[in-house]
Amino acid sequence: MKRIDGGVTAPMGFRASGVHGGIKRSGALDLSLVYSTVPAVAAGVFTVNRVKAAPVLVSEKKLKVPTAQAIIANSGNANCCTGEQGLADAAKMTECAAAALGLSPDEVLVCSTGVIGRPMPMENICGAIPALVQSLDTLGSEAAADGICTTDTYPKQSAVEFELGAKTVRIGGIAKGAGMIQPNMATMLCFLTTDASIRADLCRKALAEAVEQTFNRITVDGDMSTNDTVFLLANEFAENKTICTQGKDYKIFLEGLKAVCRDLARMMIDDGEGGGRFLEVRIEGAKSAQAARQAAYQIANSPLVKTMVTGSNPNWGRIAASVGSAGVDFNPNKLDIFLGHYHKGEVSESLTLVYEKGEPVEHTRKELKDCFKQDSLIVEVHLHAGKAGHWVWTTGLTEEYIQINTRYGS
Amino acid sequence: MKRIDGGVTAPMGFRASGVHGGIKRSGALDLSLVYSTVPAVAAGVFTVNRVKAAPVLVSEKKLKVPTAQAIIANSGNANCCTGEQGLADAAKMTECAAAALGLSPDEVLVCSTGVIGRPMPMENICGAIPALVQSLDTLGSEAAADGICTTDTYPKQSAVEFELGAKTVRIGGIAKGAGMIQPNMATMLCFLTTDASIRADLCRKALAEAVEQTFNRITVDGDMSTNDTVFLLANEFAENKTICTQGKDYKIFLEGLKAVCRDLARMMIDDGEGGGRFLEVRIEGAKSAQAARQAAYQIANSPLVKTMVTGSNPNWGRIAASVGSAGVDFNPNKLDIFLGHYHKGEVSESLTLVYEKGEPVEHTRKELKDCFKQDSLIVEVHLHAGKAGHWVWTTGLTEEYIQINTRYGS
Repeated sequence: MKRIDGGVTAPMGFRASGVHGGIKRSGALDLSLVYSTVPAVAAGVFTVNRVKAAPVLVSEKKLKVPTAQAIIANSGNANCCTGEQGLADAAKMTECAAAALGLSPDEVLVCSTGVIGRPMPMENICGAIPALVQSLDTLGSEAAADGICTTDTYPKQSAVEFELGAKTVRIGGIAKGAGMIQPNMATMLCFLTTDASIRADLCRKALAEAVEQTFNRITVDGDMSTNDTVFLLANEFAENKTICTQGKDYKIFLEGLKAVCRDLARMMIDDGEGGGRFLEVRIEGAKSAQAARQAAYQIANSPLVKTMVTGSNPNWGRIAASVGSAGVDFNPNKLDIFLGHYHKGEVSESLTLVYEKGEPVEHTRKELKDCFKQDSLIVEVHLHAGKAGHWVWTTGLTEEYIQINTRYGS
Repeated sequence: MKRIDGGVTAPMGFRASGVHGGIKRSGALDLSLVYSTVPAVAAGVFTVNRVKAAPVLVSEKKLKVPTAQAIIANSGNANCCTGEQGLADAAKMTECAAAALGLSPDEVLVCSTGVIGRPMPMENICGAIPALVQSLDTLGSEAAADGICTTDTYPKQSAVEFELGAKTVRIGGIAKGAGMIQPNMATMLCFLTTDASIRADLCRKALAEAVEQTFNRITVDGDMSTNDTVFLLANEFAENKTICTQGKDYKIFLEGLKAVCRDLARMMIDDGEGGGRFLEVRIEGAKSAQAARQAAYQIANSPLVKTMVTGSNPNWGRIAASVGSAGVDFNPNKLDIFLGHYHKGEVSESLTLVYEKGEPVEHTRKELKDCFKQDSLIVEVHLHAGKAGHWVWTTGLTEEYIQINTRYGS
């Protein structure tokens, strides 16, 4: 498997575009289209928030038939908490795009991201769709990635290429997401494409597995969005033997899909609002998978841990306090805490034991100070209560995060 | 019932003091003592964090016999994650104080607050205890309140006076707490005194009830401390008929206790790190008390809601998104959201319906802008899923919070 250029249009038979559709006052790109020249097998994963945005409800319904040929998406307005009008507007977006593409609206999926609770400027959006369709291009990935950005500081793309049997297959994707990212993918959109041939149920299964290992492991601020959506379109251009079992080809395909999702998830954390330091939290020895997950998120979302990550003091007591308040079972007299960091390239790491069996390890203060000069920080906690583990990625909390989110929506 | 001066020394028979004990580098007060001239009935409520600081473990054990005559406390060092040495140090603090006061160590309770994971400077502390005892004074409440401050910007005191039968009774208290305040009282210390006579079991019960309705309703950042402690000493100086049933006298006493706790809790929120706007979150119509509580804290701890509270934009969609991610059951098409504020003096309020049955109420934008010019903000959410409710107090998240917590511990 190798990384290739081209993002969401790296697989054969895909086009993409992005234009300014009159939603953002700044004049920035805010309308994106991803298009397969032939009908594709389609799968989606959506937010589990009780309050779902209109385009989520509309797309979920369309995906009951697992084929699609296009995805239309906008930024600047989430079309959420917009009631009946919002549902009509989301449907209308798919109708306008379908008309301009010569498709049935059933073949067009829809996404929105931005401010919640504002009516959609439908006249502007529908007026811009013809230009959006005209701009479709095999080199359109970056424009499409740009058109879905909100507080992101750069468009996010990745693509890989690998062999399935004698055929070369590609998977590509674009994504947006910077704040409000908590498990189950809050405020993130990700559009994945592949020219592989894969049966619809396995396409769905692979997508769910990849999301669980990547996007569901990142958190910026513990908030979960109303709009999160990941789509995967598979258009069979590569002419591989259709993947219809969970055998070798499925496993290779899944690795490729996970690689692209992992690249995009890592970009989201690196671009997390406020630009804090990267933090990987690992829990080991939890009583259950649920407890491990809960402890990991408790630490990753703790404002006190996150401000420690931003600063330069190895104030690891906050980690002990945080895991102690997670509501999971362990004996504090067995608790071990390690702090560390990745070395360049992230293939190797250094870890230092700072707290062992409920007692501080005193001689490590200098090592730790050095640790806080790195780009990445690792927190590893051993609970010694069982065999379950979990890991999540997050960032430090910075003053810039507050500035961004105090102003956003004005 | 009326408010009186004097804080923790307002009740008869109590003395207090605060000195610099060589813990804080700044030279600020960091060692406090509260003392009853006669043995008192004692009760305590402690953190439910799995990781408990040494003084919490030591005091919990002493309170198995529910009498005490003194509380010694320090700020600047939490004596937490300090292992066996920490336990020995906490015990030593009570021994030194007992020796200087001519008491048994069993009669002295102990508390610490500050940085976690550092050894206690025991030589300084024990050296300062004689001066601390010499400074004991019936006007010593403010010095004692000062000595327990960490990031607090002012010492917190309150006291009330009321009649029980023909006798006048007083309840007073001091507290500290500004950050890391999540239910179950994270990083807060509160020492309450009364000259009432009350049976030990009812003293404990009244304290638990008052804490549940006050300190357990405040959250600054969702983190729960390892050191939270509330003590109540009742020394019988008022010579009221001992409260030994849950009848009228108990109810009057409880109201007085709640009033002092509420005053102190409100001061903690007002002094919350970073000085954000006051926010009261109310949930109504939840399926269960647990669901109501969970929804209230989800909103109150959401960084996106908290930055909205700091800003001036009624971006109420974040409230919908937050309650939707709380993991509690409700139908989004029935959801109502009100925004409002208290009028001066907090006896009356204005509420505006901004979201009704899943649809935005569009005409309220101007009213809401005005609402964000007030000192306080009220968020009221009706889930229409049952009959349970809950409320909590918190503050907006500010850049100053990040500054304080990025630097703290250096």
